[in-house]
Amino acid sequence: MDALTLHEDPRSGNCYKIRLTAALLGLPLERRCYDIMKGETRTPEFLSRVNANGRIPVLQVGERFLPESNAACWFLAEGTRLVPGERFARADMLRWMFFEQYNHEPNVATLRFWLLFVGEANLSVQQQGQILAKRAGGEAALAVMEEHLAANDWFVGGSITLADVALYAYTHVAEAGGFRLRDFPGICAWIDRVAQEPGYVAMD
Amino acid sequence: MDALTLHEDPRSGNCYKIRLTAALLGLPLERRCYDIMKGETRTPEFLSRVNANGRIPVLQVGERFLPESNAACWFLAEGTRLVPGERFARADMLRWMFFEQYNHEPNVATLRFWLLFVGEANLSVQQQGQILAKRAGGEAALAVMEEHLAANDWFVGGSITLADVALYAYTHVAEAGGFRLRDFPGICAWIDRVAQEPGYVAMD
Repeated sequence: MDALTLHEDPRSGNCYKIRLTAALLGLPLERRCYDIMKGETRTPEFLSRVNANGRIPVLQVGERFLPESNAACWFLAEGTRLVPGERFARADMLRWMFFEQYNHEPNVATLRFWLLFVGEANLSVQQQGQILAKRAGGEAALAVMEEHLAANDWFVGGSITLADVALYAYTHVAEAGGFRLRDFPGICAWIDRVAQEPGYVAMD
Repeated sequence: MDALTLHEDPRSGNCYKIRLTAALLGLPLERRCYDIMKGETRTPEFLSRVNANGRIPVLQVGERFLPESNAACWFLAEGTRLVPGERFARADMLRWMFFEQYNHEPNVATLRFWLLFVGEANLSVQQQGQILAKRAGGEAALAVMEEHLAANDWFVGGSITLADVALYAYTHVAEAGGFRLRDFPGICAWIDRVAQEPGYVAMD
């Protein structure tokens, strides 16, 4: 495989997903850090060379650049134990990864970013007006996860897959966004299981 | 392959993606329709049997149920001409599909839903307060697409893939959400190319 470089902000759970995937698989990963609070991913050089969408993470593979956290995890893990071998199970893993980006991240991750890094007092009126809807959306996403984890150890099949990695990243730090994880015992037990996986690394 | 049934609302672009994928591949697909405006995907039976997340589309494969439009497209198309054979290209296709769900759909599709089906006068104050941000977010997503399509006929490689199918669904009807497609000539030419593909079916 070509040399791998992760263009990232270490505070981002989306970046952590890729580091965790690489760690679980024992893949070496160079890290290049940017401060998104200072606009370092919106410079002309970043936009023209790394990602026209102005966002991190981006996984650099040799001289090619791959944005979108879950696509980068897929690139690293395809054909390994982190991706199921059966066709329906593989699609079901992607189902949870799309759920993560649509139902979970815009609520759970955004509230963490707003409350922990921006600060509630610094939010715009429009952002403040979205807090209640994002709280409800995040709790609904956690409830869907809890219902699944009450009856299953992992999201797909009998061992950890990219579905777990993708959902773990922002779930295990959701309390920083004001969510009460103790209301979700199945999620809490699953968080402990993920952290016991061989090769696991913590978020910075 | 097991019998395929699409649980859908025909007005939804997310559902259309799956119908278009099946049509391009010549796969037979039964259709079971629900009216999301009447809450037909929030009934106890739907939640317990089809999708605990209360959303369509869901692709039924025999007696198994697969939510999330892009995961359903993947299930149908894996191993076909709609998914690239090269590893990086395959991940790059997923990159555009995650971009679609995160940057495009919540803006372009939501404004179409609000303006075409709910009606601007019926929006809540909170929804009305989000229109400008969703307009800007949708235009930014269309600009990222335009930059790519100014230099490329397709999103990945030299022929249509699921990346095109996923992005086409809500882009080609974006004017119903108040977007001006004539500002994006690369997108307009690509829309014409997609519609000329053998097997293409139009949205209902």
